Amino acid sequence: MSIPPDAFFLDRTDGLSLQVQLRRQIIAAVTAGRFRPGEKLPSTRALADHLGVARVTVAQAFAELVSTDYLASRDRSGHYISETVEHRIEAGPTSPTAPGFDWDSRLDGRFAQARRSDRTRDWRRYAYAFVYGQADPELVDHAAWRDCAMRTLGRREFDAVTGDLYDADDPELTDHLARQILPRRGISAGPGEILLTMGAQNALWLVAQVLLRPGASYAIEDPGYPGLREILAASHARVLPVPVDAQGLPPSAIPPGIAAVFTTASHQCPTNSTMPLPRRKELLAQAQARGFVVVEDDYEFEMSFAGAPSPALKAIDRAGAVIYVGSFSKSVFPGLRLGYVVADPRFITEARALRGMMLRHPPGHMQRTLAHFLSLGHYDAQANRMRRAYARRRAVMAQAIAEAGLQPAAPNANGGSSFWLTLPPGLDSGRLAELLKTRDVLIEPGRPFHADPRDGGGFYRLAYSSIAAERIPEGIRRIADAIREMQAQ
Amino acid sequence: MSIPPDAFFLDRTDGLSLQVQLRRQIIAAVTAGRFRPGEKLPSTRALADHLGVARVTVAQAFAELVSTDYLASRDRSGHYISETVEHRIEAGPTSPTAPGFDWDSRLDGRFAQARRSDRTRDWRRYAYAFVYGQADPELVDHAAWRDCAMRTLGRREFDAVTGDLYDADDPELTDHLARQILPRRGISAGPGEILLTMGAQNALWLVAQVLLRPGASYAIEDPGYPGLREILAASHARVLPVPVDAQGLPPSAIPPGIAAVFTTASHQCPTNSTMPLPRRKELLAQAQARGFVVVEDDYEFEMSFAGAPSPALKAIDRAGAVIYVGSFSKSVFPGLRLGYVVADPRFITEARALRGMMLRHPPGHMQRTLAHFLSLGHYDAQANRMRRAYARRRAVMAQAIAEAGLQPAAPNANGGSSFWLTLPPGLDSGRLAELLKTRDVLIEPGRPFHADPRDGGGFYRLAYSSIAAERIPEGIRRIADAIREMQAQ
Repeated sequence: MSIPPDAFFLDRTDGLSLQVQLRRQIIAAVTAGRFRPGEKLPSTRALADHLGVARVTVAQAFAELVSTDYLASRDRSGHYISETVEHRIEAGPTSPTAPGFDWDSRLDGRFAQARRSDRTRDWRRYAYAFVYGQADPELVDHAAWRDCAMRTLGRREFDAVTGDLYDADDPELTDHLARQILPRRGISAGPGEILLTMGAQNALWLVAQVLLRPGASYAIEDPGYPGLREILAASHARVLPVPVDAQGLPPSAIPPGIAAVFTTASHQCPTNSTMPLPRRKELLAQAQARGFVVVEDDYEFEMSFAGAPSPALKAIDRAGAVIYVGSFSKSVFPGLRLGYVVADPRFITEARALRGMMLRHPPGHMQRTLAHFLSLGHYDAQANRMRRAYARRRAVMAQAIAEAGLQPAAPNANGGSSFWLTLPPGLDSGRLAELLKTRDVLIEPGRPFHADPRDGGGFYRLAYSSIAAERIPEGIRRIADAIREMQAQ
Repeated sequence: MSIPPDAFFLDRTDGLSLQVQLRRQIIAAVTAGRFRPGEKLPSTRALADHLGVARVTVAQAFAELVSTDYLASRDRSGHYISETVEHRIEAGPTSPTAPGFDWDSRLDGRFAQARRSDRTRDWRRYAYAFVYGQADPELVDHAAWRDCAMRTLGRREFDAVTGDLYDADDPELTDHLARQILPRRGISAGPGEILLTMGAQNALWLVAQVLLRPGASYAIEDPGYPGLREILAASHARVLPVPVDAQGLPPSAIPPGIAAVFTTASHQCPTNSTMPLPRRKELLAQAQARGFVVVEDDYEFEMSFAGAPSPALKAIDRAGAVIYVGSFSKSVFPGLRLGYVVADPRFITEARALRGMMLRHPPGHMQRTLAHFLSLGHYDAQANRMRRAYARRRAVMAQAIAEAGLQPAAPNANGGSSFWLTLPPGLDSGRLAELLKTRDVLIEPGRPFHADPRDGGGFYRLAYSSIAAERIPEGIRRIADAIREMQAQ
């Protein structure tokens, strides 16, 4: 039997070429079982006429499908669905028939419950999206990344890209990290002290799994990074929140008997305050004296606007008690999913073994492409460009915030890619966020950052990493208007 | 002060272009602090003369470094190390000074202990590497993958590649998986029943973390997949090994009171036996009657050589008790690190939340590139090419094994990319592997596959996924010779 031309159509609004669309359509029909092996396709002329495309377009699509075994061509008689094509196995309906398996009694939901649920996935559809940690197409050097990716896909690097590295890292990326990035934080580390991860979130997960012990307790900053609280909550860890002040985490307030403290010293999340050097030394002295581990999440260190960034805790850690967590995502793009841990070789050995059984290793292609991005200077160029753009936006934000009378919660904070603000008494940032959504504005309510949700209602975060400077003033105005209306109610 | 031409050199044996080498060299010197801000570089002519390259090569390297802020050029007076370049923070030595932090008392080493340690990382250096699960450059359609990666890096797909997807997957990849891949296993599943993972290892890890409960016990195949045993051992799960026979896992031998059973029904790992349909139905009937979960690791389903592959357990699972794990790594390349879980939506919701806090999501670039690789038919073409090549190699292997008098442990096994063999009584496969290493041959000893290491000594695995057919006979001969020598001792 033969397939009529009417079985085909093209969508000229689709971004894909007509030839590609035709190929995808035939493949989809074959795999779905609509086109069966041995069935004859229309002639290239008939199909070209029907679709209103050049005959060569159809001929090229057919030729490609012959080369991929979807079609067979018989001299003079045309093209047929290949007999060798693997198609669906008919195994009858798979929809569960009663009695269904009792999943509810087997799932305790601890991961879904611990997960933060306030993310807005379609943030790009909002005109004034003050969302944190997303990429701005204007700031990413797309062409350079593409160039590095192509380099990586050259024959020469085939093995590095396609092989199973077991639990190893790409030595080139580790090398550039150690020579180009870590020295800027004052850290000198050898390969045995470095583990590459799937971003900072994965690094914090690995660190927590290796450190956590039943019955032990762990200090975190309050407010603090929600992603860390998720991990600790899901792991049923005993967590002691320590209120931060204008200088970040106060060492004197760290409760006795803890096994480790998690801190964002360079840019406290979410207040953006920077821990001064004396306090850093005090924190390390206490870690030494009281024998607890210090986990330093040094996210966004590139985004410091108050002169040179101060050295990382890891850089002045004499005892080796600091586990350093860094990420490339903020300064390349979040979808990269590459970060790293720098710590004592004994800790890295254990974390590497865990990563190996968890996911083996980050994809070789991503690792090697980033290594090129670093070694050719693109990373620095992009980080510089981002820093300049963020500095501009930060100035626009500060002025707009002042003019609109919004209240910064941490006045002296001068880093990161966001502002942490406080609401007039009695107002709730969750309700504010909902109201603003109806006005094309996205903000981050404070609740997920606070150990006690009741505390978070009075705060909110405004990030500017993915909103253009010229849109900021109007966005801030809308926030101020919404707050005034809520007060008036 | 100015930098002398002698500070530069080029390596013409290096695969990188001279211009790129020069750029990397200057960047490395700056970040290492050897070249300081304000220092003057040699003139392009002087440096070109010194290096013996065209002046334009040096000029281009300098121009690129100016654009990336490493160099500044002053009219007529030449190039200088940029004043704005961020260089190392001097924070003094970071090597731990006594008293060092006591890590030993804080690490229980359970991950390092559970990890399989018999991998040979430099397997490519062996002429006869019968190693499992590595890529063969001859079988991977490198050009097609490159083409798909290029497509993905086009402007149109920027968001999908660079954005933080939170805990979501690339809908295009999920769609092609559901429409093109799963139907071949008889599985029909919607997006809510699918979770993308960092390969099958990551899928098994996620499944285990969601399923495992203190005090519960879990049945695994013996011999079985070492990667799974690693995970269960590190998680301190109570594991009950079930001896497999020529038809894989015998349902009647599954001990009472287990919460879940892990099986490789299509190609039992490592014996390669295939579970017949009646036994599959019996296994599912027992899961239904006794209320345990069935975790189906369907790795290598594309590599079945005995006619059409039988439907997956998931395809004939009426109750919804099966958690299906698949991987793209075997049929694209291992470094891809992409796999998937298909299960009840309630289970997927929980596993997705865990993945979100563990690593957010697989890199968008890899996901979208694979979606193109699938939608354009390259995946099928490559799987077909691999299947043909493996079938050839398998025939060569079978003949060579028969001629050399080696003893297959599972005669009727007819799938996968490896053979499972047994040694004459009294011989140890670990010692055999060591001996063969000295003769340019790599084999996999049986120990890591067995619950009781004493059982594994009599077995070994020979994989042919990354050894050319023409090398196989000589490799097998060397193995047979070594065995004879060990017997003679």
